[in-house]
Amino acid sequence: MDRDRPIGVFDSGIGGLTVAHALMAALPHERILYFGDTARLPYGTKSSATVAGYAAQITEFLLRRDVKMLVVACNTMAAVALPAIVAMSPVPVVDVLDAGARAAVASRSGRVGVLATLTTVNSGAYERAIHEYRPDFTVVSQACPLFAPLVEEGWLDHPVTELTAQEYLKPVVAEDVDTLVLGCTHYPLLKPLLARLVGPDMTLVDSAHTTAMRVLELLTSWNLCRTAPCHVQEHEYFVTDLPQRFRAVGALCLGRPLPDVHLVHW
Amino acid sequence: MDRDRPIGVFDSGIGGLTVAHALMAALPHERILYFGDTARLPYGTKSSATVAGYAAQITEFLLRRDVKMLVVACNTMAAVALPAIVAMSPVPVVDVLDAGARAAVASRSGRVGVLATLTTVNSGAYERAIHEYRPDFTVVSQACPLFAPLVEEGWLDHPVTELTAQEYLKPVVAEDVDTLVLGCTHYPLLKPLLARLVGPDMTLVDSAHTTAMRVLELLTSWNLCRTAPCHVQEHEYFVTDLPQRFRAVGALCLGRPLPDVHLVHW
Repeated sequence: MDRDRPIGVFDSGIGGLTVAHALMAALPHERILYFGDTARLPYGTKSSATVAGYAAQITEFLLRRDVKMLVVACNTMAAVALPAIVAMSPVPVVDVLDAGARAAVASRSGRVGVLATLTTVNSGAYERAIHEYRPDFTVVSQACPLFAPLVEEGWLDHPVTELTAQEYLKPVVAEDVDTLVLGCTHYPLLKPLLARLVGPDMTLVDSAHTTAMRVLELLTSWNLCRTAPCHVQEHEYFVTDLPQRFRAVGALCLGRPLPDVHLVHW
Repeated sequence: MDRDRPIGVFDSGIGGLTVAHALMAALPHERILYFGDTARLPYGTKSSATVAGYAAQITEFLLRRDVKMLVVACNTMAAVALPAIVAMSPVPVVDVLDAGARAAVASRSGRVGVLATLTTVNSGAYERAIHEYRPDFTVVSQACPLFAPLVEEGWLDHPVTELTAQEYLKPVVAEDVDTLVLGCTHYPLLKPLLARLVGPDMTLVDSAHTTAMRVLELLTSWNLCRTAPCHVQEHEYFVTDLPQRFRAVGALCLGRPLPDVHLVHW
């Protein structure tokens, strides 16, 4: 297989750029094709069947572009569509949910909290993934449907966000967890606020970095690492809604302008 | 034209049921076909071009079902797609945005505030609609992107919602308006909280009732009123995501179960 082929990274919208950013930092040689389904987001409030249909369509799109690996940078898609994505894909698939579960099992107390979207929580996927590594662990899940809209509003450190977070955290903290998985790619942007609320003894798992490490591990073991250096201009971004807003918020996520954003008409 | 044909009512999701509810109350003889694009909602954060494309698709769907009138029960679609909908439609079109503007011009001070989605505010459609009736009026618009998620979370009277509303209302109230248009069909569910915050001297315009009155007026003047009584079981609902959630929240909106919800595969 041609090692210079790109890695396909996809999300319902913009949150997955936190994963793309971690990949670019950890694997600066690799070229990224990023897909954000901005015309149909969010996925986290929609049914499994609908999300799985969208995921299949995006997978097909990226496979046609000859990627050497797929990174599911959306917890909701990973929660409800991973078997279908894996079945369609002739190339390896890495997903943020499994990465989050792998990091969570470092918990010393064996009690883990998961903050995620409604669809992810309803799927029970985090419980299953964590129990695959540690069947003895206790997993407490909490849907946080307002976190993504609050992040999109830019209220990262706002009294409304703090009050909302207190409300969502209350039942999870009451269960004496020592680890909290940020189970949606929007949530790492709330990490400073959440860390302040839960205190220094709680481990916050942000799966972006863990995902990048998993990608690096797989590329290395399969001898698929790209050797030629990659310039930031070589990364490509595909979105389904007009790219103005994606470009603006995306530049904040990545810390630099996004030169090449293509509109996909579906 | 056959007066027994149904009225097509459409929205990005569930909010338009507040309009359908007002129609059922004011015109109990009429049969409603309701369409909610639950697989692609919300529209209020998406580009005009994308929303207009979705609106055209829904319009075509309802026209093929032989409706005698279209009711655009979504301010965002009315704001960015009304000319396209009207151009496609051989039957009369009534929309919530025009209904809201008609009600707003009863303001005594001539200073009107509009609370709406980002896309509606960016379109400037409320300013244009109000100025069409009263060019001398001052219109102050405020995007409230968190209101719809808060309503969907069911936090209708919650400290988080109150704090959010205070933040959004501050710049509008500072402009000395005497009338506040609830320019998104989710917002009437926040009316009690908003009324408490702005006090009894502010008129809150909820366009659902005004829309129903406009429909009644047009049906009467065109001699299109249905004569046969309509049973609640005759109304039909079409959604694009699995109908479980729509059915549950919809029953709350309408005060009775929704028997007939069809899934449309797009």
